Amino acid sequence: MKPSYNVGMIGYKFMGKAHSHAYRDLPMFFPSVPKPVMKAICGRDPAGVSQAASQFGWERYVTDWRELVNDPEIDLIDINAPSNAHKDIALAAARAGKHLFCEKPLALTLSDAREMLAAAEKAGVKHMVGFNYRFAPAVQLARKLVREGRLGRIHHFRAWFLQDWILDPEFPLVWRLDREVAGSGSHGDLGAHLIDLAHFLVGEMTEVIGMSETFVKERPMPSSMTGLSAKGSSDAPRGPVTVDDATLFLARFANGALGSFEATRFAGGHRCTNAFEINGSKGSVKFDFERMNELQVYFTDDASDVQGFRRVLATDPAHAYSEAWWPPGHTIGYEHTFIHETVELMQALAEDRQPVPNFRDGVACQQALEAVEVSIAERRWVRIDEL
Amino acid sequence: MKPSYNVGMIGYKFMGKAHSHAYRDLPMFFPSVPKPVMKAICGRDPAGVSQAASQFGWERYVTDWRELVNDPEIDLIDINAPSNAHKDIALAAARAGKHLFCEKPLALTLSDAREMLAAAEKAGVKHMVGFNYRFAPAVQLARKLVREGRLGRIHHFRAWFLQDWILDPEFPLVWRLDREVAGSGSHGDLGAHLIDLAHFLVGEMTEVIGMSETFVKERPMPSSMTGLSAKGSSDAPRGPVTVDDATLFLARFANGALGSFEATRFAGGHRCTNAFEINGSKGSVKFDFERMNELQVYFTDDASDVQGFRRVLATDPAHAYSEAWWPPGHTIGYEHTFIHETVELMQALAEDRQPVPNFRDGVACQQALEAVEVSIAERRWVRIDEL
Amino acid sequence: MKPSYNVGMIGYKFMGKAHSHAYRDLPMFFPSVPKPVMKAICGRDPAGVSQAASQFGWERYVTDWRELVNDPEIDLIDINAPSNAHKDIALAAARAGKHLFCEKPLALTLSDAREMLAAAEKAGVKHMVGFNYRFAPAVQLARKLVREGRLGRIHHFRAWFLQDWILDPEFPLVWRLDREVAGSGSHGDLGAHLIDLAHFLVGEMTEVIGMSETFVKERPMPSSMTGLSAKGSSDAPRGPVTVDDATLFLARFANGALGSFEATRFAGGHRCTNAFEINGSKGSVKFDFERMNELQVYFTDDASDVQGFRRVLATDPAHAYSEAWWPPGHTIGYEHTFIHETVELMQALAEDRQPVPNFRDGVACQQALEAVEVSIAERRWVRIDEL
Amino acid sequence: MKPSYNVGMIGYKFMGKAHSHAYRDLPMFFPSVPKPVMKAICGRDPAGVSQAASQFGWERYVTDWRELVNDPEIDLIDINAPSNAHKDIALAAARAGKHLFCEKPLALTLSDAREMLAAAEKAGVKHMVGFNYRFAPAVQLARKLVREGRLGRIHHFRAWFLQDWILDPEFPLVWRLDREVAGSGSHGDLGAHLIDLAHFLVGEMTEVIGMSETFVKERPMPSSMTGLSAKGSSDAPRGPVTVDDATLFLARFANGALGSFEATRFAGGHRCTNAFEINGSKGSVKFDFERMNELQVYFTDDASDVQGFRRVLATDPAHAYSEAWWPPGHTIGYEHTFIHETVELMQALAEDRQPVPNFRDGVACQQALEAVEVSIAERRWVRIDEL
Repeated sequence: MKPSYNVGMIGYKFMGKAHSHAYRDLPMFFPSVPKPVMKAICGRDPAGVSQAASQFGWERYVTDWRELVNDPEIDLIDINAPSNAHKDIALAAARAGKHLFCEKPLALTLSDAREMLAAAEKAGVKHMVGFNYRFAPAVQLARKLVREGRLGRIHHFRAWFLQDWILDPEFPLVWRLDREVAGSGSHGDLGAHLIDLAHFLVGEMTEVIGMSETFVKERPMPSSMTGLSAKGSSDAPRGPVTVDDATLFLARFANGALGSFEATRFAGGHRCTNAFEINGSKGSVKFDFERMNELQVYFTDDASDVQGFRRVLATDPAHAYSEAWWPPGHTIGYEHTFIHETVELMQALAEDRQPVPNFRDGVACQQALEAVEVSIAERRWVRIDEL
Repeated sequence: MKPSYNVGMIGYKFMGKAHSHAYRDLPMFFPSVPKPVMKAICGRDPAGVSQAASQFGWERYVTDWRELVNDPEIDLIDINAPSNAHKDIALAAARAGKHLFCEKPLALTLSDAREMLAAAEKAGVKHMVGFNYRFAPAVQLARKLVREGRLGRIHHFRAWFLQDWILDPEFPLVWRLDREVAGSGSHGDLGAHLIDLAHFLVGEMTEVIGMSETFVKERPMPSSMTGLSAKGSSDAPRGPVTVDDATLFLARFANGALGSFEATRFAGGHRCTNAFEINGSKGSVKFDFERMNELQVYFTDDASDVQGFRRVLATDPAHAYSEAWWPPGHTIGYEHTFIHETVELMQALAEDRQPVPNFRDGVACQQALEAVEVSIAERRWVRIDEL
Repeated sequence: MKPSYNVGMIGYKFMGKAHSHAYRDLPMFFPSVPKPVMKAICGRDPAGVSQAASQFGWERYVTDWRELVNDPEIDLIDINAPSNAHKDIALAAARAGKHLFCEKPLALTLSDAREMLAAAEKAGVKHMVGFNYRFAPAVQLARKLVREGRLGRIHHFRAWFLQDWILDPEFPLVWRLDREVAGSGSHGDLGAHLIDLAHFLVGEMTEVIGMSETFVKERPMPSSMTGLSAKGSSDAPRGPVTVDDATLFLARFANGALGSFEATRFAGGHRCTNAFEINGSKGSVKFDFERMNELQVYFTDDASDVQGFRRVLATDPAHAYSEAWWPPGHTIGYEHTFIHETVELMQALAEDRQPVPNFRDGVACQQALEAVEVSIAERRWVRIDEL
Repeated sequence: MKPSYNVGMIGYKFMGKAHSHAYRDLPMFFPSVPKPVMKAICGRDPAGVSQAASQFGWERYVTDWRELVNDPEIDLIDINAPSNAHKDIALAAARAGKHLFCEKPLALTLSDAREMLAAAEKAGVKHMVGFNYRFAPAVQLARKLVREGRLGRIHHFRAWFLQDWILDPEFPLVWRLDREVAGSGSHGDLGAHLIDLAHFLVGEMTEVIGMSETFVKERPMPSSMTGLSAKGSSDAPRGPVTVDDATLFLARFANGALGSFEATRFAGGHRCTNAFEINGSKGSVKFDFERMNELQVYFTDDASDVQGFRRVLATDPAHAYSEAWWPPGHTIGYEHTFIHETVELMQALAEDRQPVPNFRDGVACQQALEAVEVSIAERRWVRIDEL
């Protein structure tokens, strides 16, 4: 087993920070996993990327991603640049024989995503896509219960990703509200996570129909932005919002379950409610990312006088990844999903297998996203396999 | 003001019991409202209705509803017989000049519902429909917040009515699973309440698209049934389930809000989760009938360090109907929704106005239900005003 | 079995209303239990008691309780007059051979309580004391789990009854804040319920030590009061608060468990948080009256990956009294505890046994209350059997 | 400002790991704070400490703490060795002029704690004690609300630290159950945190009275232990448990508030419920560490129809430390309390002031702990200033 892998990372903002931290913490908590070595970070702005390299702990920085993907020292390219840059980088990196770890969405279009998957497969490299929410221990537990048949036949999956960071009409027109850069709005940003969780927990969908809305159609231009926050002024010139503020859709799953999905950035009071519920013939589970250490679990075969949803705190030794952390009851946070994701990546490299989720999952997610978009544009049910 | 109204009630099962109790308790807690006098109860089975009359406190019973609707002593006919009997009774009672209080669903079809409304209007009688959930004080509070503009412009309404009483495939084929008697399944039973709450809280819808499923297609015939429970045997002969186990739909509201609805009897762990959430530009509210005394309320203009959903226990003097009951913090239950409903009915009679909700609301609900059914059958968006 | 018992009730305010309603509803929901006949109600103010008789449904009223306790038509005397009147009425009623149903606190002193018990025993009548919270189905479930050994050996009982109705220093000086009438403040009013629940759920205590405080020592005199609400003015003359605003104590139980108790009327945001938790070697339960239909239940022997408190909604057929009400998930409220209490009373009369809780439980509660008061006055641990 | 401080750490188990991680992550998330340089780690077992040094990221390791405290390269000594070793190390380190960061409990006795404080003060070094729970943003918010008077005059503080890791009588006799090493059981381990939070949030206590119990008096000797988990066998020889399994006490605060405290390791279902509630004349707050990102907040002056506890997710920019982390709604975990604690330590060093909490707080905590122990031994109220 190779004891470590040299990482070159492209992008250094919100996701760049989350990934850097994962690489930084992984060896301390998962010492039996190969170590990701933080070799080089890439960004276009020398001052910005230099500062990030120093702060996050990268050995060096570059400003041209082509230099990085062709660097023989690098084993793995981590792509968390803006979504519209993913494809070119991934294709070049695959050609150079690098393993790939790409943030979601894999690409702005299904066609691009498929091209990226094909390139990775042709190159014979490992490829992973960053659906980090799979890696919350409570979500892992949900998956385990489904897989072990403890929820029985699945009848319902309902999921909603509710945020409120652009509810104020004076919030500036950040890049996430620009279709050219972001591809889509709540749908691609939040709905993509719901779709991936649906795939992870329930399986493939067969058909979908959706609806979407942009509640606030013009916003002031921003003066600065970072993460999900931004500064601006009501006096600033205004530009058009070109993505959806909210997208909802219904779905059928191949296994007969019914699905309901909602992604919105206009749900006041919900900072980051990434939530789902699964109802099966033998039990149900509920999850809400704002209480990410918890899974609510119900079993139909509990004794008749004590039936009810159990609030399971997924910090026990029986829960995925938890023994690496603190004693039971000592919770973890958002950033740990990235550490666990990186554990999967490193383990897959060590075991010479594809990590999960990989570009296939990224393509499947893009396919569902795009089917929903077609269903909205054409006001009809769309089969996933039409695309 | 007339000090009392003589009631004749048709039906004596689950809803008959709930209505009887409301009439019985109303004068004690709302002494300033005209008193409903429990004159006569009607049912086809003499033994059953006789026992109910005695147990519930009716002065007498009859076995032929025609006798009751033509009884000059009766002011008001309360119809909670099976859904397929509503129309004939209502038409006859209206012709006889009786005020009408009809359980939901008003009728099995939109056409029948409209006929009932027309008959009531022609006869110039008062008419009410039994959407009792409006009358939970917490729901009244939600309405008040919307009406007073304290939630701002409404962006989202999502509602789900989740039950699990037929999750077991061996649960018998009760009348609620028979389209001939019940009209529809989860959609008409549970979804109807969600639609009425949507109308009450957000307003009219313009278009819908839905999907439905019957997960268990055959069930054993029952040996007995009462309320939502029933007895049967796996050895019993089986019959087909002819209604939906679950129905979901998406909607657009006239005011621009997006709606998401789900009604199911297959959500394990949910005995009676009749829940909704409203997100507006200035705030949000959440309600779950299993905690019916509570409304979760969020305001965007709370101080920046203490923003969050408040759990309001709607038992304070500031809350509708609450002063008639117990001191703050002393909760009420399901049956109280019927008492409040009856208060509205008696007050409307006293004030010579139509009660709310009335047959117009029943027709509007039926119209939305049927639009969803058409959308499912024809796999397309259906405008409410098509019907 | 006698088919009914004639009730004479003394008192017609908050508790009088709750008891009246229980008598009124009992026959409808528990038809197999002997019927309490609402014969006569007694109060000193003719206008008030006349109005109450009519509103609550009593056949007649009297203004002299001595007339009532000597009325040969009456089988049972229900005492819910102010606490300082309990003793004289009970003694006279016992002498007259009437069965007794007395609100808590049984009396203002342990000595009086014992005298009442002795009188009832000497007279050979049935006697009940009104610890209504025992009769919430969720509390009954807690008791069942303890009794059946499903929680194992009990280690901890912690209980707190938190209210906030006098938090405002300008709230008037109502009778509940006057030692002469009320006996004590939060301790006798709220703490008494906690002690009774402790006795019911865990068993006898052996020793206690407490502390108490009156945070607001003077208040304006009230102009009117009803239930827990009152009207007054900051301009009104002020009088001294002579009872405790809050009382806390620690206890040891005979079975080795440790107890912690807190009763206060100064807990902002708590309208009526009557809550307890029990921790045993095999499981735990949690209850909060503001969500009175729910019991949180934990078992140590649940599978290791799905351990957690279950939220049991005690509305299933498996739960005490629930089948008399509505289908699972349809909750009940505060007033139902009184109906269930009355069911126990009527059943005990029918079965010629003492109801539970009875005056022995009232004495035991008073003994614990007084032991706590001695411990506060003398700043030392006090053994229950010292008194 | 000195850009960094060289740390020498003694101890490498549970707390050693938590501290190491804090040093490791601090520079990435708080780049404007002086950097703690992970110079050397110390432990008696060469194999163990060597492995820890490598895994946690320390430059080197030593096996003799005296070598470390006299190393001129070291600026700060971090003491998280077993509690019975704190004093000797701290005295020597102070003599050597090193700044001190000591885990709680500061010492096994009040006398020792005072000696440590005196030594630190005499040496003129900075000293901090590891009450990490102060540093949860939600706890910081509670403190802010109290300090700004937004809760008014404080009437009540109730706190309970509930765990269940030794509920099983066959759980081995780990060092935390040995008075010689641990000083006390639940009281010193868990109660100490509650006392410190009381000091932090409400202020000084004046008198206390407590009770304690050891439910399981003998346990099998362990074969191995780490963190809070251990392995053993029921066949192993047994030894006596010499510490308390549970300790409860009542307290009065100097400001007139009443306090209730409970620490136990026998509360099934509670992995780490470190919870408190504060009730003031203008509002209340509730905290539970198992949901450490949340603070429940109630204000008496909210509009009368929307009063209720708000669930504030303390991840907004308005909340302490939160801007260093992720966007609102993206929660943090247990380990972050240590990072924030270390930020305070580094900032204090940079600003040439004592960090808070420091050895004075450690002494105050020890004084309260010991007062409770005296009150238990002598079965009487004990004034804090007696000791």
